[in-house]
Amino acid sequence: MQSTDPATAVQTIDRATCTSLDAVDPLAPFRDRFSLPEGVVYLDGNSLGALPRGTRAHVDRVVAEEWGVGLIRSWNDAGWFAKPQSVGDRIAPLIGAGPGEVVLGDSTSASLFQVATAAARLRPGRRVVVAERGSFPTDLYVLESVQETVGGPAPLERRLVHEDGPTLEDVLDEDVAVVVLSHVDYRTGRMHDLAEVTRRVHDAGALVVWDLCHSVGAVPVDLTSADADFAVGCTYKYLNGGPGAPSFMWAAARHHDAARPALTGWHGHARPFEFPVGFEPAPGVARFRVGTPQLLSLAALEASLDVWADVDLDLVREKSLRLTELFISLVDHRLGRWPVEVVTPRRSSLRGSQVALRHESGYAIVQALIERGVIGDFRAPDLMRFGFAPLYVSHADVWDAVDALEDVLASEVWREPRFARRGDVT
Amino acid sequence: MQSTDPATAVQTIDRATCTSLDAVDPLAPFRDRFSLPEGVVYLDGNSLGALPRGTRAHVDRVVAEEWGVGLIRSWNDAGWFAKPQSVGDRIAPLIGAGPGEVVLGDSTSASLFQVATAAARLRPGRRVVVAERGSFPTDLYVLESVQETVGGPAPLERRLVHEDGPTLEDVLDEDVAVVVLSHVDYRTGRMHDLAEVTRRVHDAGALVVWDLCHSVGAVPVDLTSADADFAVGCTYKYLNGGPGAPSFMWAAARHHDAARPALTGWHGHARPFEFPVGFEPAPGVARFRVGTPQLLSLAALEASLDVWADVDLDLVREKSLRLTELFISLVDHRLGRWPVEVVTPRRSSLRGSQVALRHESGYAIVQALIERGVIGDFRAPDLMRFGFAPLYVSHADVWDAVDALEDVLASEVWREPRFARRGDVT
Repeated sequence: MQSTDPATAVQTIDRATCTSLDAVDPLAPFRDRFSLPEGVVYLDGNSLGALPRGTRAHVDRVVAEEWGVGLIRSWNDAGWFAKPQSVGDRIAPLIGAGPGEVVLGDSTSASLFQVATAAARLRPGRRVVVAERGSFPTDLYVLESVQETVGGPAPLERRLVHEDGPTLEDVLDEDVAVVVLSHVDYRTGRMHDLAEVTRRVHDAGALVVWDLCHSVGAVPVDLTSADADFAVGCTYKYLNGGPGAPSFMWAAARHHDAARPALTGWHGHARPFEFPVGFEPAPGVARFRVGTPQLLSLAALEASLDVWADVDLDLVREKSLRLTELFISLVDHRLGRWPVEVVTPRRSSLRGSQVALRHESGYAIVQALIERGVIGDFRAPDLMRFGFAPLYVSHADVWDAVDALEDVLASEVWREPRFARRGDVT
Repeated sequence: MQSTDPATAVQTIDRATCTSLDAVDPLAPFRDRFSLPEGVVYLDGNSLGALPRGTRAHVDRVVAEEWGVGLIRSWNDAGWFAKPQSVGDRIAPLIGAGPGEVVLGDSTSASLFQVATAAARLRPGRRVVVAERGSFPTDLYVLESVQETVGGPAPLERRLVHEDGPTLEDVLDEDVAVVVLSHVDYRTGRMHDLAEVTRRVHDAGALVVWDLCHSVGAVPVDLTSADADFAVGCTYKYLNGGPGAPSFMWAAARHHDAARPALTGWHGHARPFEFPVGFEPAPGVARFRVGTPQLLSLAALEASLDVWADVDLDLVREKSLRLTELFISLVDHRLGRWPVEVVTPRRSSLRGSQVALRHESGYAIVQALIERGVIGDFRAPDLMRFGFAPLYVSHADVWDAVDALEDVLASEVWREPRFARRGDVT
């Protein structure tokens, strides 16, 4: 067997190598199932996934037929009432969950409030929640509300962990009720060992809530074999459910009967159409439902799950690692002249499906890239994020992206005033 | 001036009278702006409004262009981030609110939790919430969570009022923090005097949260002149926003700075894209935003608001009263042989835009009506509900509905086993 020095190997790569890799890519046919604009290299599927080709027709059918013709009858005839659970069952295989364990909710923030509050209440004697200082901030904001909701006049204490310390080991003790962690970090792409971390949390007698926003559809997730407790996730990123598509919630079956929802809406009631005066939680994960689901957004998600039903997540992971390794290698090899730092872990077991580069003018560089059709995004203060959605990003895309990046840096076009930071929101 | 005895007048009405009324109805042209199936008399717009003709194309454009082509750029370029507020500003005129006072949220249940918790926290010394025993039940379920969230280890007390007593006067005292009321009752269609009740609540030093689900788009609402505090409402009923369209929240400007959201998501943050670690509420009503809005559902709502921009709510109210009065008169005149009771107030000032009839076999009768193309709904234990959406329900529809009802009762077709109650959800 021939061993190749990676630094040498990357010098031999050219665009033709990349197109050759695409030619033998078992996931390459999936690209045709997405509608992507001409001339765009889309490396932001970690923020908003691309549009599946089947979505337009499906959404239009739901609007015109289920709503327009079926009208109120579609709550029964089109299975609308069951959708948050029937669609949840279609997400379950992507996260190692069983049927009846996943339910669609409102926004991820609302759903995190729902499950994290329930989790904290399952450890009533314990007064501490643990989270990551580098979390996507909404997780921290929501936890502030959880601390107050569960703690009452004396809000729960919060301990924050960080890769620079304190570590999870430093803060885990018998006071910790719940640990909320992002499986894959939204900025750096760093990935936790879900099973190993779950075990450590359990060893301390606490419960774990996994935020799967940046891992579902990007890496294989197995909540059941990890013995995790609760999870929430996002369906508009790698799952291609459309802008603002509903979040999902998962609870291990062992918690179903004891978990009390924090948001007690009628769709989470055991007998919603008997209209009783008091709240009585539905059996199972359905109790986490709140109000009427936003069915048109759910319809778009359903259409994208038709694609995901045909996907082998092991192939996704293999390709994802090939793409991110190729990107990192090309960045190392071709951008060494500039102060560009690879922030994402180089060890594949620690990496999700995105790569972050640090540059103090990251904002302007990202804007200049977008003008060239290479769409990534920027996260303050200095990170350029590139997501690699294996269903529609090719090896040639990776080549073209690094090409564009080299061109933007070499030409210094990013210094032009039109790329200066404005009040943009994404 | 000629005075007509109503009982005599109704005997002179026939279908031709109704079509004559339609011919001079200033709102009749709006019917063409909705897509309704042939042969259907749709009297359930109080539950799920009909599909506006412009919605399909608008939603498809958002899917294909804003999502499919614009991709992540649409957060800026298509104004996605601002939508919950820009669409809120378009709802404001329908409820007597000013610009910057209305924001779109998740489900109505989640939004009620958001504003009712904020309201209760504005009266920290007071330990009681008041609600109506006959509320749409989710309001009571959500209040259970509010009681626990605000009260902590000693949940707030709840006092329930009812038209049979105790009355609001009976329970209002210096312990009451918040009163949550439905402007129009979901079952009976009974309407409160919003200004008068608000005044009584304020006289007791409490705050009022109005649930406008069954009044927005059905009757003129003026929250500002009523000096109300908070409101939530539904956009998928009379506003025709589509199944599960997002709820809206309103807060009087005087509460904007002091109100603390209960669900603290990043879209409600003052500087969401700086990603700070701590929650800091956005100025104004934007602080009630939670997470990423479900934009496809929002898109459908936007399309329906194009219709509502052209509507005169005073004409809506006039026609609504004509329709409900006509319906009640015809029911009185033609159905007197059967045990059908009009539950809705006959005094127009006390009535929204729906009429409920009580019959012990209401469920089967509604199913038999639906088979005949007359779509109303049933609410346990014995109420048949008929909503009259003035933009697309005609006087002839009212005639045809009563005709069908008389036929179903006279033929006793509703006794057939296929109409027996099953596990249907609506």
